[in-house]
Amino acid sequence: MTGAESLVHTLLANGIDVCFANPGTSEMHFVAALDRFPGIRCVLGLQENVVTGAADGYWRMAEKPAATLLHCGPGLANGLANLHNARRAQSGIVNIVGDQATHHRALDAPLTADTEGWARGVSAWTRTATDATTVGRDAAAAVEVGRKGQIATLIVPADIAWNPEGSVGQPFPLPPVPKPAPHAIENAERALRSRQSTLLLLGGASLRGAALVDAHRIAVATGARIMAQTHNARIERGRGRPRVARVPYRVDQALAELAPFRHLILVGATPPVSFFAYPGKPGRLYPPECELHVLARPEQDAAFALAQLADALQAPRVSPADDGIDRAVPSGAETAALAETITALLPPNAVVVNEAGTCGPAIYAASYCSAPHDWLDLTGGAIGAGLPMAVGAAIAAPGRRVVSLEADGSGMYTVQALWTQARERLAVTTVVFANRTYAILLAELAQVGAQPGPTARNMMTLSNPDIGWVHLATGLGVEAARAESCEQLAGLLRTSFSRSGPFLIEFCL
Amino acid sequence: MTGAESLVHTLLANGIDVCFANPGTSEMHFVAALDRFPGIRCVLGLQENVVTGAADGYWRMAEKPAATLLHCGPGLANGLANLHNARRAQSGIVNIVGDQATHHRALDAPLTADTEGWARGVSAWTRTATDATTVGRDAAAAVEVGRKGQIATLIVPADIAWNPEGSVGQPFPLPPVPKPAPHAIENAERALRSRQSTLLLLGGASLRGAALVDAHRIAVATGARIMAQTHNARIERGRGRPRVARVPYRVDQALAELAPFRHLILVGATPPVSFFAYPGKPGRLYPPECELHVLARPEQDAAFALAQLADALQAPRVSPADDGIDRAVPSGAETAALAETITALLPPNAVVVNEAGTCGPAIYAASYCSAPHDWLDLTGGAIGAGLPMAVGAAIAAPGRRVVSLEADGSGMYTVQALWTQARERLAVTTVVFANRTYAILLAELAQVGAQPGPTARNMMTLSNPDIGWVHLATGLGVEAARAESCEQLAGLLRTSFSRSGPFLIEFCL
Repeated sequence: MTGAESLVHTLLANGIDVCFANPGTSEMHFVAALDRFPGIRCVLGLQENVVTGAADGYWRMAEKPAATLLHCGPGLANGLANLHNARRAQSGIVNIVGDQATHHRALDAPLTADTEGWARGVSAWTRTATDATTVGRDAAAAVEVGRKGQIATLIVPADIAWNPEGSVGQPFPLPPVPKPAPHAIENAERALRSRQSTLLLLGGASLRGAALVDAHRIAVATGARIMAQTHNARIERGRGRPRVARVPYRVDQALAELAPFRHLILVGATPPVSFFAYPGKPGRLYPPECELHVLARPEQDAAFALAQLADALQAPRVSPADDGIDRAVPSGAETAALAETITALLPPNAVVVNEAGTCGPAIYAASYCSAPHDWLDLTGGAIGAGLPMAVGAAIAAPGRRVVSLEADGSGMYTVQALWTQARERLAVTTVVFANRTYAILLAELAQVGAQPGPTARNMMTLSNPDIGWVHLATGLGVEAARAESCEQLAGLLRTSFSRSGPFLIEFCL
Repeated sequence: MTGAESLVHTLLANGIDVCFANPGTSEMHFVAALDRFPGIRCVLGLQENVVTGAADGYWRMAEKPAATLLHCGPGLANGLANLHNARRAQSGIVNIVGDQATHHRALDAPLTADTEGWARGVSAWTRTATDATTVGRDAAAAVEVGRKGQIATLIVPADIAWNPEGSVGQPFPLPPVPKPAPHAIENAERALRSRQSTLLLLGGASLRGAALVDAHRIAVATGARIMAQTHNARIERGRGRPRVARVPYRVDQALAELAPFRHLILVGATPPVSFFAYPGKPGRLYPPECELHVLARPEQDAAFALAQLADALQAPRVSPADDGIDRAVPSGAETAALAETITALLPPNAVVVNEAGTCGPAIYAASYCSAPHDWLDLTGGAIGAGLPMAVGAAIAAPGRRVVSLEADGSGMYTVQALWTQARERLAVTTVVFANRTYAILLAELAQVGAQPGPTARNMMTLSNPDIGWVHLATGLGVEAARAESCEQLAGLLRTSFSRSGPFLIEFCL
C-alpha cells in the first residue's frame, strides 16, 4: 500500500466520506487511490476558496469534518480566506495539501512555497508528513482535530504519497466535550437572581436544539434577555422556535442595545467587540460597569450548562410563542418588502446561507416567523463565503432547500461555486441582491467623515459595467432569471423551489 | 496631515502612480486621501488575486512597481497566489495592507488574522507601521524594495492611517544594479572557447533589448546555443529578434534537450530543475557531468555581463536572421494550425500573456516569426495569473494590444479580471482554449501510471456542465464570441484588434 493509499484508507476508516478538491500534479497518487478505494464523494471546485468554503458549510450542517484536497502552497493560499471564516465558525476541516517531494524541495522549483507558514494562520494543527509508513497515523491525528471543530492541515510531499509500506491510521477515541465547572453555573444563577438587567449572549451550539430552548426558558423565568452574537455559524429558528436577535453590526446600534445590561453571561460566545475600530468609539460593545460571566466557553458543553442552569433556576417549560421579545424593525421600505417576501416563502427546513451584507439584517429580523430553518452567517468577515458554503450545506443536508442570500460584491469573490452547484445538481436557490455597490463601504466612508470623491466612488461602485448575474449563472450551468420587483421575486422563488437543482435570481435593488 | 495622507503623498513622491485595489473598511482613510491628493490611478479588482496579478503584469511592462491596496489578512491571503507568481518573476510590488487598529487587535475581532505571517512567504520586506509620524518613511522604504524587483508589504493599522502628524517619506537613492565580478566573465569566456558543447541559459533582463542581441552574437560567434528558462517574466521576440527556445516543461524532453551540454552558463537564470519530482527521474535537468558557470545572478546586471563577454570574445555583430537554430516542431495538427493562425495575425508590438498550459508551447514555437512582440509567461505555476496580468500589462503599455492566451481551467481561477478589463476599457484580446479538461493533469496522471477512474476523470474534466465563456464575458461587460475553427478564430482575432476595448474569443478544442 502506498502512502496515498494508506491516506485514503485512513480517511475512510475515520469517518470522512466527502472531499472537496482541486488537485494538481502532486496529488495525482491520492486521486488515483480514491478510485482504487471508493467511498469518498469527491467534489471539484474551480478555485480553492470554493473548496474550503464548501468544507465550512458542510461541517455546519453535518457536524462532522470533510476533507479538502489542495495543491501546494499557492493552492492552499487561495483557500485561506474561507479557512479563516471556518476557523471563526469553529468548523472542523481536514486539509490534505500535496507538495513538492522531500528531495525536490531544496531545488526550489517554481511552485515551491512556504506551505506550512501559510497553513499555520488558520490551522489548530499543522504537520508535514515525513514518511509513507506514518502518513496514515498523521491523517488519523488530523481527523481527530477536525472532529473537535478545528482546522487540521496535513501537508503530504509527493514522494510520501508514492512510496510503499503505508499503513492505515486507526481512529483516535474522541474525548467528550468538556463541561463547565459547577461554579460557572452557580455564578450565572446568582447574576440571574440579582434582578439586575442581564443578557445571555449565545454562540456556537447554544443556538440550536435543546440548548436554545433552555436559554429561552431561563429568559422567560428570570426576565433576562437572550441574544446571539453578530455572526453565527448556525442558528435554528423560525416558527415554534425561540426568537433570537443578534448583536447589531453597527457600533452605535450595538452600544445602544447593550447599554442597559449590568450582567452579561457568555454561553459559547466571546465578549462582544466591534468589527472594526473607529476614532473615538469604544471597541468593547458592553458598558464598562457591566459584569461579565462565563457560563460556557466556546469549546465547552453549552447545552449541558444551560440545562443545569435552567434546572437550578427551576425555570418552567414554556412555548416559544411566549417570548415577548421586541422585534427589530427593518430599515427602508424596499428592503422591508423583500424581507417580507422571503420570510413568507421560505420552504420548511430550508438552510439559509447569509452573505447579504446590506439586506441580510432586515431579512433576519423578519424571518423569525418563517417556516423552521437554519441560518448560517459569514463568521470571519472575509467575503466570498456564501456561494461555497451553500455547496457544502447542500451536500451535508440532502432533501433540504438551501437559500443563499448573496451580495453582488461578495458573490463575485467566489462566483465559480455556481459551477459546482450545477455539476452536483444541488438544491440551492441563490438570490443576489444587486445594488451595484460595496454599500457597506460607502457607509463606512461616511463614518470616516469623508464625502466620496471620484476615486472613492470608483472603488465602491460595481457598475460601469453592470455585472450581469443571469449571464454569469448561465455560463456556469445554473438556471437564472432577473427580478425587478418583489412580485417577480416571489414568482421566481416559487419556480426555484420547484426545481431539484440550482437556480439563481438576480434581484435589482 | 494624517498617516494615510502622508502615505499617499509618499507614494506619489516616490514615483508610484498606479494602485490596483480592493479596499475595505480599514482602508477608508487611505481611499479618502487618494481623492484629496490626486495623481494615482486607482484600478478596482473584484477579488484580490486580480489585484496582485495586475501588479505583476504592470511591473513586467512598466519596469516600475505599482502599489496594491488590500484589506486585512484575508484580503492579502486572496492575493498570495499571484504574489507568489510575481516573486518568481522578480516583479517589484508595493503592497499596502490595511488592518485592525493597534488598540483593537487584542480584542480579536472577526477579521483579525496573522497578516504579517501570511505576507512573509512572498515578501522580501514585511513591516507593520507603528506610528502615523513614521508611516511615510515606511512607505518610502517599501518603494525602494519594490524598485529593486522585490515584493514589499506594508501593513497599516487603521489608527496609524487616521492619526495626525504624518510626514512624507523622501525617496531613497536607488543603488545601481550590481555588476558581476570580472572573473565571472573570464570564466564564461573560457568555457565558450573550450569548443565543448555550451549552453547560455537566459533569464530575467537577458531576454530583452541589447542583452539578448549580445547573447545571440556570442552564440553565433562561438557555436554555443542560447535558451531561455521554461517560464520567463518577459521575452522580446518576433521578426528581427533572436529566436530563443525555452527549456521544455516535460522532464523527458528537457533531459533530452540538455543532454548534449558540457557547459551551462547561467545568465540571470537559475540551474534548470523539473517543475515536479517523478519517481525514478532526476530533479536536475542538466547532465551530472555538465559544468555550471554563473555569468550573472538573477539580481545582477546581465546586460553588462553579456556585453563584456561578447567584446572579450570579439563576437561580430550579426543580424538575427542568421541564427541557424532549429525550430521546435509543434505537436498535433490542430494545435499547429491554431498556432500558425495566431502567429500570422499577431499585431505589431503586441504583448502576449501566456497561461495556455496545453497550447502555449506550440504557439510559442510558431510565433518566433510573428511581428515583434513581448511574451509573458506564468512564472510560479500558480494558475490564475493570465487574465489579471493582462490587466496590468495593458495599463503599463497603452497603445499596444495585449493578447491573452488562456486555458479554461486557469482562466476560471480569476475570471473576475474580465470585469476590470471592461471597466478600464483595456485593449486586451483574450483567447480561451476550451478543451474542457485540466489537460495537464490527465498527462500527469498517465505519468503516475494510473488509468483515470471515474473519480479522477471527474476531478480533471471541466465539462458537465460546459463552461460558457461567451456568457461569462458578457456578464462581466466584455464583448465575446465563439470560434470552432481556425478560420473563425482568424476572423474574430481581426475583429478584436479593431476594437479599442477588450474582446474574448472562446476557441473550442
